[in-house]
Order: sequence, then structure tokens, then C-alpha cells
Amino acid sequence: MQLLRTTDPDFDKKFRRIVRDRRESDVDVQRDVATILNEVRERGDAALVEYSMRFDDHRLTTEDDWRISAETCKAAYEALDPALNSALNTAAQRIRSYHENQLPADRDYTDHIGMRLGARWLPVDAAGLYVPGGRAAYPSSLLMNAIPAKVAGVERLVVVTPTPKGQTNPLVLAAAHIAGVDEMWRVGGAQAVAALAYGTDRIKRVDVVTGPGNAWVAEAKRQLYGVVGIDMVAGPSEILVIADANNNPEWIAADLLSQAEHDPTSQSILITDSEALARQVGDAIDLALMKLATAKTAKASWDAHGLIVIVESLDQAPALSDRLAAEHVELMVDDPQALFDQMRHAGSVFLGRHTPEAVGDYIAGPNHVLPTGRRARFASGLSVLDFMKRTSFIDASDAALAAIGPAAIRLAEAEGLPAHALSIAVRLNK
Amino acid sequence: MQLLRTTDPDFDKKFRRIVRDRRESDVDVQRDVATILNEVRERGDAALVEYSMRFDDHRLTTEDDWRISAETCKAAYEALDPALNSALNTAAQRIRSYHENQLPADRDYTDHIGMRLGARWLPVDAAGLYVPGGRAAYPSSLLMNAIPAKVAGVERLVVVTPTPKGQTNPLVLAAAHIAGVDEMWRVGGAQAVAALAYGTDRIKRVDVVTGPGNAWVAEAKRQLYGVVGIDMVAGPSEILVIADANNNPEWIAADLLSQAEHDPTSQSILITDSEALARQVGDAIDLALMKLATAKTAKASWDAHGLIVIVESLDQAPALSDRLAAEHVELMVDDPQALFDQMRHAGSVFLGRHTPEAVGDYIAGPNHVLPTGRRARFASGLSVLDFMKRTSFIDASDAALAAIGPAAIRLAEAEGLPAHALSIAVRLNK
Repeated sequence: MQLLRTTDPDFDKKFRRIVRDRRESDVDVQRDVATILNEVRERGDAALVEYSMRFDDHRLTTEDDWRISAETCKAAYEALDPALNSALNTAAQRIRSYHENQLPADRDYTDHIGMRLGARWLPVDAAGLYVPGGRAAYPSSLLMNAIPAKVAGVERLVVVTPTPKGQTNPLVLAAAHIAGVDEMWRVGGAQAVAALAYGTDRIKRVDVVTGPGNAWVAEAKRQLYGVVGIDMVAGPSEILVIADANNNPEWIAADLLSQAEHDPTSQSILITDSEALARQVGDAIDLALMKLATAKTAKASWDAHGLIVIVESLDQAPALSDRLAAEHVELMVDDPQALFDQMRHAGSVFLGRHTPEAVGDYIAGPNHVLPTGRRARFASGLSVLDFMKRTSFIDASDAALAAIGPAAIRLAEAEGLPAHALSIAVRLNK
Repeated sequence: MQLLRTTDPDFDKKFRRIVRDRRESDVDVQRDVATILNEVRERGDAALVEYSMRFDDHRLTTEDDWRISAETCKAAYEALDPALNSALNTAAQRIRSYHENQLPADRDYTDHIGMRLGARWLPVDAAGLYVPGGRAAYPSSLLMNAIPAKVAGVERLVVVTPTPKGQTNPLVLAAAHIAGVDEMWRVGGAQAVAALAYGTDRIKRVDVVTGPGNAWVAEAKRQLYGVVGIDMVAGPSEILVIADANNNPEWIAADLLSQAEHDPTSQSILITDSEALARQVGDAIDLALMKLATAKTAKASWDAHGLIVIVESLDQAPALSDRLAAEHVELMVDDPQALFDQMRHAGSVFLGRHTPEAVGDYIAGPNHVLPTGRRARFASGLSVLDFMKRTSFIDASDAALAAIGPAAIRLAEAEGLPAHALSIAVRLNK
């Protein structure tokens, strides 16, 4: 953990280094992924069979080797512990409700010259969702990706997931049942993303691919961007807590550790105007680490990337926060709205002392797929818009074309595009 | 030009081949672009000086070599022919008005358990706009990219444009004046995109880069996706005209040629249920090509990629159109709305016989930056949203956290993330 004070003479230099630090693994998988994508495009299912054997020790032969059926998902759902069943359903209902509120409105109006203009939103035909296997297979991620697609109106929602040695995660299957996933394939890695983008005999292609994954999956999405739509490529997770002196250090310690336990590359940052709180939070983290089952990961993250910044006044916090443009920002102060009003860049903001970030990870309703690595400067969390597209339209009356056609002709001629000009002129001179 | 009939025994095979044809140049610039990006990131302005000399024969020494001043743009505007001045202003005003209508609404509500939820939209701090030099330097493109950024509220709008041997395009400078561009730099190519994304001593970095460009520029944007936000990478332009027998073939010929004249890789397609119209349009195109200043390009495009599909009934047109997912679709029929209602995938649709696509290129108001190469399946035209980002927020009251916190704890425990569970539990057990 690093401790900085804005009064340090070299504060700006050190803070700038932290802002620039990418924390992303620089394993170069570009060439391997390009090969895999090409193999799947050329050889389809045969390539999937080979890669699944090689990477997941899973043989794709029978229908059951290839697919997880809707019945299997339903059975996993029905076998859930009742409390967990209720929790998953509450989460799904709240996520659905928040995302329904996001649906964009079409526009259709006629302006003063009699030209009808507008835009129509429609869902994509099919969406693919990558669900990691093993430790990172989170039912909450499935809900957060699948429900916005279904709310958008996507008719065919396809999940791909690796099943190492054939193993599946019953919680993920139950979540797929709740979310209404239409197809679920036992393939993973870059090869699964390629199958979604190009299509194979078995797996029909989709239009958008979302969902988290390892470096291979992320690189596959990056390379296939444009062949399909993708969500933002995600990096390591981050939390920034902005807190005044009047806080329970245990609460803040737990919040910082809730990011740190995700991965050693995660980053947890506290900005406070209280030296005492800073010290108490540091102590509370050390204490909590002693009994946390995820202590090894959380400690690695906190030691390497943890940061406490002591400011002279919390008025300095919004500007520092904007430079970090963190994925999650908690505002643990008396008037969180006043701070929020001064901030510009953050993935999601948690206002007040009773809004731990974890409530947003699971159940509050807003999406937990958020821009990382300072991308909140320009990117937004996953939403129904990622599963929709907009068609603009123009309907010119005879009179409307007469009103503005001559100006368009002049511009087309000035740009040296005579057929553009002609296409308007022939209609005006009929 | 290729003529297909849906009654041909091999129609589906041939149509599928056309749908799959990418028409994109496969010049491999990936490695060259990676080198250029790296040089600019490492050496900043010095690399820009070298590349501008090498690629544009333009020496960057004095301030005037580097920048085109606001005064220069204003002078270009004031020197405009009055008719052109009026046309550009009309276009700018109509584009502004359409895009103002696109501004998204914030959301802020409190649900039945007392949890406040919402989303706030803000513009990015700075946007960069690539404007090609030479033949493809279109003032209309500058307006179509710059005005949505300004309507979004972007405070710093930066144009980069190559000025080969120092030459500038007065129409583009005048458009920059009208649109309110804040900075204009005389650098182009992949190196200019790198400067926008990474920043140099002279050119401060931006958050989003948009605008058309050659293969190097497009690849630079692709490689920098994630470092900055970008608009969709664009491919060759397309138009699809769906027309019944009751049409003037000259009008349709002009519309098809207005795409064909852009580039030899452009594609113009007519779908009609009238053999007679198909023949007449073919003849009208041959006739128009005899007097068109851009005939060489238009003929190359029409010969290589032009297509007429004769259907038995126009009821077949929407499904074919959806497979093409064309950038521009004209509906030249009596009831264009009925056809539009059956279509799902298109960049922009032009309804009725008096709405040539060129009116949308210049002056109608909707954006002319649209998804190409079948990307309308999942992508949308440029809009104010490309220059904005959304921050979700959550504000839980004590009671709201008590209501749903236990369910979140259960999910966190099931996912093996105890610090997540702890961060909620400490607040419930206070």
C-alpha cells in the first residue's frame, strides 16, 4: 500500500504515475488468438472439437457434450437452496426493472419545412454471452449480461462457456434459467468467441458478443470488433472510496477489500481528509485480512496497488477522482450529492455511508459491467443500448425537397460529387 | 453489374456470396501502424515532425506550420461565395437541430424499498476529429462529426488533418469555423490519431476520436480502441434502392450513381419487381455515365459491384434488405412506411420518391456517418451519444440496505467473495 499526501512536494508526479499505471497483463496473445480465429472461420466445428480437447480436456461428441439443455438449467434452478433461489430471483427482478427504465424512445417528427425525420431503435437479432469457467464463473455476471439483452428484446441469446473436464457450475445454470438464455454451448476461449462471430454449422452466428473472460477472450473480442459488436474490453477492477473523518474504518476496510479480493491486479484507493481515519482503515484492513478466506489475493492486490491519499480538504477529491476515472466510486460523506455534482468521470457512483459497492455488484439494479482503466472518461457501463441499434430515417415531401434541395446541390457540386447533385436536380426539374 | 432474379435456381447461393463479399482492401498495414503509434507515444512531437515530412512533404517548424488558426478559418468562411455560405449554414443549422433532439435524459428515481437509482449523462472532456486531406476532404463530413460533439457539450474539439505540401481546403476551414472547432492541427495519418490518443507536448490528448480516413487511419483507430473511444470503423459505402414499376428510371440511376461515384469499392443495388424498370435503369445509368465528371470511378464501382435483383413481389424485399443491412436504403414505393415497418437492419432509410439519399448526405439533419459492410445489424450512425458517457448511481437508505442486503450477502457467499459479503454485513450489524 502506498500513502500519498497532496502536500508532498512530489505528489503530482507520484499521482500521475499511478494514474498512468495500466496494471494489465502484457502477455502477448495476439498471434495465438489470430490463429484460433482463423481456424474456426475456416474449419468451424472441427476446430472447436480440437481446441476444446486441447484447452479444456473436454471431448465434443454427443449432443450433450456440445450443449447444456434448457432442462438441465431448469433442474439446477429447482435444486437451489431456497434462500439462494430467492436471492437470485430478487437480483434478476431488480436488474430487469432498472434496465427496462433504460429503453430508448424512438423519434418521429415533421419539421417546419415539412420534412419528416426520426430514428427507430430495434434489438439485434442475436447476442452471444461469454461466461468464464472455473473460479470466475459468477451467476451475477450472467444476470448482468443476459437480462439487458432480454430487456432490449433480443430473440436469440446464446451462452458459450468452457466446461473443463465436463464440469459445469450449477449456480450459473440456474441463473441462465432465470434470465431466459436460449442456447448454451460447452465451448470456451477465443474459439468460442470466433464461433459466435463467424458462426459454425452447429452454432449460428450472433450480432453482439459481451461478457468477461481471460486475456485470450478479451483479445478475440478486440480482433473481432467490427465483425460483431462487442462491449468494452475490460481491465482489472477498481474502487475509490472518498471519505470524511466521520466514518467507521471497518466499513471502509471491507469495501476496499471487496475489490482487492477479485484479483491481484485490482486496485483499491481511499481519499480522505483525515489522517486518523487513514491510519484506522489501514489497521482495519490488516485485521480483516487475518480472517478473510480470500486474504491471499486481497493482500497481494492491496500491497501492490492499494493507495491512500490524504488531502487537505475533500474539495480536492473530485478533481483527483476525475483523473482516476475509477470504475466504482463511493462517497462516504454527509452530502454525497454535492461531491457527485462536482465529479465528471466514474463508471458507477455509490452515494452515502449505507451504499457499499457490493450492493451494486449483486442486487441494486444498475449494471456491474463498468468501464475500467480510466475508460470512464469516454465509456459507459453495459446497458440495453449495447444490444440495440438505431436506424435514422428521412421522408421528404415534394415541398421539403424543393426548400432545401438547391442548397444540397451547391454543397455536392463544391465537393466534386456531381451524381449527388444530379439525384436532387432531376427531382426538382421534373 | 450483376442481374439476379429470385426465381433463378441458384439465386440464394449467388445472393449469399454478395452478402459475404467484404469489398474492403486487404492491404496489411497492421505492423506499420503499430510502429507509428509506438513512435508517437515514445517520442511525441519529434515523431510527428518526421512523419509529416515523410508522408505529407510538410515541414512542422513554426506555429503556423503546426496549427491552422481560428482567424484563418474565419477568413476562409468570410471569403465563401454567398450561396455556398448560405448552404453550409443551412446544413449546420439542420444537423444541429436534429442532434439536439438526440440528447439523452438523465434518470433519477427512488424505488419502493427506498433505494435511489439513476444514471447521469455527461459529455467527454475532449474529442478529436480526423479530417482527410486531398480529394476526400469534405466540409459536410466535418459538420457531421463536429456538430454532434458540440451539441453533446464537448468543450475541446480538436481537428487533425494532413496538409500535403502545406495545402489546405478552404471549404473545410470554413466548415470548421461554422462548427466551432477549438483547435486544428496540420498532422494526418496514423501518427495524428496516435497524437490524439496519447497526447504530445503540443497536442493534448482527447477522449474520443472520430472521422473518416484511409486504411492507416482506420487501423490506427482500431488499435487504439480502448485507449480512446472511437466511432465504428467504416468500410466502403453502399446504397440499396427498393423500387416498384412506377418510378422515373433517371432518378434511380442518379441515386445509384451517387454512391458509385464515391469509390470503386462502393456498392449500388436495386431491388425491383419490374423487369422493365430494371432495364430502363440500366440504360439510364449508361447514359448518365457518358456525361458525369466522376464517370470513371462510378463506372468502376457499378461494373464491379452494381447489382439488380428482380423479385416476384416487393414483399420479398425486406428480408433481402435485412440480409444486406445496407448503409442507405431508399424506399421508392407508394407506401414506404409499410416496407420500413417490415425491415430491421439499415443505417438510414429514405422514404418515398422525393427523398434521394444525397439529401441525407448534406442537409436533411440526420448523420451521414453510418454503419457499412452489414454492420447495421448491430451498429448505429454517429450521434451525440458517441461523445457522451453515462455514470450510474445508487444511493441506499439504511432501510433499503436492510431490505436487500441479506440477499446480496447470500449471493456473495455463494460466489466465494467473503469481503463483498462482509462490506454489507458490517453495515447491517452495526
